[in-house]
Order: sequence, then C-alpha cells, then structure tokens
Amino acid sequence: MITSADNEKLKTIRKLQQKRWRTKLGLFSAEGEDLVGPDPVFLLRAGEDVEPDLLDAVSTLGSGTRVIGVYEQKWADPTGDLLVYLHAVEDPGNVGTIIRSAHALAEATVVLGPGTADPYSPKAVRASMGSIFTHPPARATLKDLDGHKVALDSGAAKELRDVEMTKPVVLVMGSERGQLPQGVERVRIPVSADSLNVAMAATVALYETALRMAGDA
Amino acid sequence: MITSADNEKLKTIRKLQQKRWRTKLGLFSAEGEDLVGPDPVFLLRAGEDVEPDLLDAVSTLGSGTRVIGVYEQKWADPTGDLLVYLHAVEDPGNVGTIIRSAHALAEATVVLGPGTADPYSPKAVRASMGSIFTHPPARATLKDLDGHKVALDSGAAKELRDVEMTKPVVLVMGSERGQLPQGVERVRIPVSADSLNVAMAATVALYETALRMAGDA
Repeated sequence: MITSADNEKLKTIRKLQQKRWRTKLGLFSAEGEDLVGPDPVFLLRAGEDVEPDLLDAVSTLGSGTRVIGVYEQKWADPTGDLLVYLHAVEDPGNVGTIIRSAHALAEATVVLGPGTADPYSPKAVRASMGSIFTHPPARATLKDLDGHKVALDSGAAKELRDVEMTKPVVLVMGSERGQLPQGVERVRIPVSADSLNVAMAATVALYETALRMAGDA
Repeated sequence: MITSADNEKLKTIRKLQQKRWRTKLGLFSAEGEDLVGPDPVFLLRAGEDVEPDLLDAVSTLGSGTRVIGVYEQKWADPTGDLLVYLHAVEDPGNVGTIIRSAHALAEATVVLGPGTADPYSPKAVRASMGSIFTHPPARATLKDLDGHKVALDSGAAKELRDVEMTKPVVLVMGSERGQLPQGVERVRIPVSADSLNVAMAATVALYETALRMAGDA
C-alpha cells in the first residue's frame, strides 16, 4: 500500500497531466471504473494499492477518483476505407468525442492533423469513453493521406448525400473558428449546421457517410 | 464601478450557481463574450462595471471571465412539429448540447422530462452556445405530449429511416444508464450506436428526422 505522495507511480500520474510529459514518456492515464482500459503499465486502486487521499490528490477530477490506470500511447496507421481528419480541432473534449463517434458509427480511424489537441489528455480520454483503447488515432498531414477528401461547408452547393463515396474516403473536419484547408471537395448537410460544433458535425457526417458506404458496398 | 464583494449583483451571481436559487429567482447567468445574450437583467463587465478580481471570484470558469450577464429564465410551450423529449438526461452538458443541436438541425423544441438536468445551469448554458436564448426548452411529462413518439434502441428491428414521420413527432432520448419509458415506438439507427452518448445519438436522430420531415412536406 502506497502511503507517501513521494511514491514514483504517483509522481508519474501527476506528470502525465502535462502534455510535455505524456509525449516524453509515451504514456497516458485514465481515471474511474468505467474508463480504465486493459493492459495497464500499472493501476492504482484506492484502499488496495494506495491510500484514498493520495489518489484523490493526483486525480484530474474535482470529485477525486477510486482508480487510475497508466497506459502506453498507441498510434494507428493513417489508412482505411474511412478516415476522419481533424484540422486544428483545439478542444480535447471534441477530439475525444469524435474518436468515440468514429468508432461507434463507422469503425473509422481518426487522423490528427497539425494544431489538433492531444487525444491522450485526461479530458480527451474521458470524452472518448473507452474508444481510445480500442481505436487509437493516427497522425498525418492532409496531403499525405490518400483518398476522396470531403469537408462540410454550409456554403457549399453540393450535399453530402449526393457525393459519390469512392473508397477510401477522408472526412475533413475543421475547428469552428479555423479555416478548412484547400484541395478538398466542399459539401453541405441539407439542414442548417452553422451552429453545430465540430463534434456534432462530425457525428452527422460519419452517420451519413457510413450509411452511404454500406449502401454502396 | 463595483469595488466590494458584498455588492448585491455579485451576490446574485454567486447564488445563481445553485439550482435552488435559480429556481427561486427565475434567473440564470451566462459568462463570456461569446455566450452573453440579449436583454440581460443586468450585465457586468470587468474594468467597466466591476473590478476584474471581483468578477473572477464569482465566475464558474477556472480561468475567470470578463463579462457575466444575468437573465430571466424562459420556458417554451411543449408543442411543435418536432419535439425532443429528454427522459432523465442527468448531464447538464448533454442537455445544453441537445438544445444546440435541436436548434441547429431542426428548429426543434427540447422538452425536459423528470430527472433531467437543469438547462439553466452554467454548464448547460455554455454547452448550448447561445441556443438557450433563442430556443428555450419546455417542461412536460411524456404522457402529456401529443404525437408520434419514437425512441432509439439498438435492439429494435425497425430503422429510424423507415419510420413514417407523421407530425407531430416526439424523439424520446434516454440517458445512457437510464431506461426508456414505455409506450414509445422503438427504432434503431442502421449503424452501431451502442456506445454513442445521448447527445450524439440525439444529433443523429435529429438530422435523420429533420431530413425525413423536410422530404415528406
């Protein structure tokens, strides 16, 4: 039982709150019974492995936590029939939510472009609700991806529903305030989506695209 | 310029962090330049109306804020061609996100059933991204609503896309852990949605339903 805040495992968990350390160590942490995944580097349970107060002290949740696991970061290859490319999506909650939606709706791989939040930050890991473990993201720039690149743009004339979905398909999602990159077919969804956030827009686009690809198969 | 934390306006803002006081006063607060709405009861700007430190002290954001507005709660009638009924959706972020999606995708009114989080909590107001001002929610129980009631259920045989959308339509969304109420047609979306959260599922259902209703009109 760990009884000192100077313990190395607790120090590691504290470090992993910072992106700098996550990158350096290639690790990340997940908190809470619903969110800890398989094959941890180590796992600390309050009252079994560590005194509860000491675990609460390194928790990123205001309410504290009963279990924290530390894991190796995994990165997928940026290949597949359907990819979701994130261009400068700065909010980690949106990044995690999109990883979750991509998994649930389409078994799609999320590819992180420049300026996108760390998918292994505590907030992104929570938002992914476990999908980060089974569907790790990839990293690439848009020009290095092969496929038919499609971006949502409420000003576009063509509807997503009318796009020919030639595999592989890359759904390009920009941040709400950012600009979408060039070299991409712009399409709209046929309902007002101006005020959808990027995670909602990605969910709708994934739903429509997964349906279309299933229908075309 | 307010220079004392004992100021009545600051005290009111602090009280409005609690649901008990929001209900008693019929008011709510919104923080930040992007989120303050029209027609405030009062509005405080850091450096103009109040000392910045005093405003930060009553902010619900860790980073503090430059402006807080206080507003009267508005409630809509639970009527319309398309309603989204929330059954025990406990997370205020999901409630706010669904209000935003309902507005953006379908101009639909969100109806809050028993056990659903306060849409005027700071977290719900933030997640609604301004939609709470233009598309206030309604309150009702499901049995008091008229219309064709449809709920997403991954175990259902019928697909949402195949449902005849006879207006008015009520999309019934349950919380992730909760049970859906009886007396509702259960349908599925034709992709694995078991691990979608309630806000994502609502977004997909709103998209599909709004399209169908527009096509049928």
